[in-house]
Amino acid sequence: MKLHYGRMLTENLDGQHGLTRERMHALTSRFPSVHAEVKTRRNAGEYGFYALGQQENTVRWIRRFAEGVGQAYDHVVVLGIGGSSLGVKAVINALKAPAWNELDDEGRDFFPKITVLENVDPSSIQAALKRIDPRRALVNVISKSGGTTETLAQYLVVRAWLDAALGADVAVRHLVFTTDPVSGPLRALAGREGIPCLEVPPDVGGRFSVLSPVGLFPAALIGVDIDALLSGARHAIARAEQADLLQNPAALYAGLLWTADTSLGARIHFVMPYSDRLRDFADWYRQLWAESLAKRLDRRGEPVFAGPTPVGSIGATDQHSQVQLFMEGPYDKVISFIRLEDPGPDIMIPTRPNLPPELSFLPGHSLGELLRVEQQATAAALARMGRMHCTLELPDLTTETFGELIMFYQLAAGFAGVWYGVDPFDQPGVELGKKLIYAAMGRPGYPAEAASPEAPTA
Amino acid sequence: MKLHYGRMLTENLDGQHGLTRERMHALTSRFPSVHAEVKTRRNAGEYGFYALGQQENTVRWIRRFAEGVGQAYDHVVVLGIGGSSLGVKAVINALKAPAWNELDDEGRDFFPKITVLENVDPSSIQAALKRIDPRRALVNVISKSGGTTETLAQYLVVRAWLDAALGADVAVRHLVFTTDPVSGPLRALAGREGIPCLEVPPDVGGRFSVLSPVGLFPAALIGVDIDALLSGARHAIARAEQADLLQNPAALYAGLLWTADTSLGARIHFVMPYSDRLRDFADWYRQLWAESLAKRLDRRGEPVFAGPTPVGSIGATDQHSQVQLFMEGPYDKVISFIRLEDPGPDIMIPTRPNLPPELSFLPGHSLGELLRVEQQATAAALARMGRMHCTLELPDLTTETFGELIMFYQLAAGFAGVWYGVDPFDQPGVELGKKLIYAAMGRPGYPAEAASPEAPTA
Repeated sequence: MKLHYGRMLTENLDGQHGLTRERMHALTSRFPSVHAEVKTRRNAGEYGFYALGQQENTVRWIRRFAEGVGQAYDHVVVLGIGGSSLGVKAVINALKAPAWNELDDEGRDFFPKITVLENVDPSSIQAALKRIDPRRALVNVISKSGGTTETLAQYLVVRAWLDAALGADVAVRHLVFTTDPVSGPLRALAGREGIPCLEVPPDVGGRFSVLSPVGLFPAALIGVDIDALLSGARHAIARAEQADLLQNPAALYAGLLWTADTSLGARIHFVMPYSDRLRDFADWYRQLWAESLAKRLDRRGEPVFAGPTPVGSIGATDQHSQVQLFMEGPYDKVISFIRLEDPGPDIMIPTRPNLPPELSFLPGHSLGELLRVEQQATAAALARMGRMHCTLELPDLTTETFGELIMFYQLAAGFAGVWYGVDPFDQPGVELGKKLIYAAMGRPGYPAEAASPEAPTA
Repeated sequence: MKLHYGRMLTENLDGQHGLTRERMHALTSRFPSVHAEVKTRRNAGEYGFYALGQQENTVRWIRRFAEGVGQAYDHVVVLGIGGSSLGVKAVINALKAPAWNELDDEGRDFFPKITVLENVDPSSIQAALKRIDPRRALVNVISKSGGTTETLAQYLVVRAWLDAALGADVAVRHLVFTTDPVSGPLRALAGREGIPCLEVPPDVGGRFSVLSPVGLFPAALIGVDIDALLSGARHAIARAEQADLLQNPAALYAGLLWTADTSLGARIHFVMPYSDRLRDFADWYRQLWAESLAKRLDRRGEPVFAGPTPVGSIGATDQHSQVQLFMEGPYDKVISFIRLEDPGPDIMIPTRPNLPPELSFLPGHSLGELLRVEQQATAAALARMGRMHCTLELPDLTTETFGELIMFYQLAAGFAGVWYGVDPFDQPGVELGKKLIYAAMGRPGYPAEAASPEAPTA
């Protein structure tokens, strides 16, 4: 994987916008202390996700399950939300054929279909339970804390559906929980009923957990080579040990976005892969970047209200949706393109007799070539308008390079925490909302609270 | 549909952030001139989308096709991008059962499956052409100009696929084009081969065209009541004629977002429906808002670099992804929640023996209730932190209310153009990228141009 960052720099833009040599120098000068802080915090146990490269026992257990008992099921149903669903969806989208569930058994190489239920919207749950056959469904309930309201509500509904079809004793054989090794309601339920449990390492937060059993187990069930995924992740980690910032792409990427945000006001961070297969990856990135960096207080407890807004877009599609904004809107963005050198099996654009002259340049090119040209042309146009952007280039999209991409972004979020001076592993801002939900739902110990008016109304 | 905007106001937030009474007064005072300008421009033909409420002949033709010949096909394939795909996807997502293509014929009431191909990513196209049977597919090629590069490249590939399976003469019967009434390459091709053509009204731009044949034709084929869709749209238009800003929700909404952006720096405009069925609607909104308002020059030709960044999120899911950012990040956002009073067929959360105490408050509530409570609690928490937001409340999500919602946003974009002082109907910023694409693809008349370096690379 390569990070092309020339168009973050004033000298390659319009000479006015972008990062000057002085700012780049400030980044490289500060990096030794940033790197040292990451190391110290890793030694103190804060950066648990670095250890996800090494999980021999977990991988062995998951593969044994997937290649054994797991083959009995033809539909995997994942119940989870946020860090327990976005990563799983990103893996499916990137590594399985498009519209996976629309393929027949042969088209799926006899691997199961998979449905991720991440919301409590009754319309989605109703429809899923109607179209899925419980007799051949494996339900994987994922909650790190074991007490996520939405996921537990889903569990109660889905469990009643399994019980009604199979009886409670058999239903247990259709369930696997992924949760904390010792504590929480899911762990308690599992112990009582003998439901198999996978462990989320306690020092790995939800948004950093896709390469833990949270993502590995569903991935293995649908035939993803989880060893290759982790091998890609290890590659990214190895590069992130580099002491020279300009040789350490994750640290450099984080530093570039941080300085663009805090010194130039570029606080909107688009990620725009030119690949339909990275659409859900972009959603996963949105959680990682938003929750890790948006913090009211810095590490010293001072109010900072930090937090770039991450946005996902897909090329070439969103050239027809967002590029007008990139070209002519405020100078408040950085666009990170993701480009594949090799888009996979390609399609030649065929010719036809009597083509109108406006189309006659198309035949003889391939769709993959057109996609690549569109990214390069869009980026070149942005450069002329003084719009900062960079490009992550993957040789291709394989299980291994996808593992590398995922870990690259996690490492970048870990470095960005230090550049921004905030704790990238907590999310204190969500607690108040949870309290108010409990109160409104009548959970004991949470008294009702008055809210300010929503009216006036038009 | 109701617009609750109380929590845009300082008095209902933390007393510090939000819009003061003075700012609200400035809005209502300016509105007569805004409304007058919209009227003048409508009379001059700029606001063509207002006429989409009245399309008797078009609706009749489409219904006759859908209820006649159209029934022969069991898969509709739409080729289009941007304004020619996002609206269609929004309609499918909102008005058809979730995972529509995964349902069997009976589950779909014998209406066809539908696949929207909007990118030139060969992996998506390859997979679609492999899983769809050309013998029963109807291909609807949509391009207002008739010359959209991506769509025409797709057409050449898909046409060869049809021809190979059916022969060129029969293939023609599997095609319908939606394009300009007289000009452009698609129109020329259609005329030459006798391919039926639907018209995009010349005064309706792509991002305002979902309620034209662009969206109506695919919608009708899969069983959407397009009369109801337009009836909802007419309802929104009627409300937008109100001269009192506080009785004119589309104009008020546009004004609130404009003043929050330009006077308080809230330049990130999230739309967050609490409904999985509005996920693609949020994507459609992103194009509408971004392309309509992001403009380098205002109406007088002065540089303004206007343009809020629109972002879509889904509740309750994205409480676990974006709410940390809303609560603790910079005060640079407005969140527009969309809430359904009635979420549709609901599901009670059942109980079980020996529930852990952390879960025992859930049974007896419904999923729909939980979803509504989560929206209200999240909004109340944001208010306490001084975070501006408003809520669009729909009684339910029906074909009619969805038509109203779509038109509401188009009207709001039309008003916002005037509040911002920009032309909401052009997109001059995308031209340079197109020129560079043509040059790189060797289109005659577009000489190759040098681009600034992408390197250095890490």
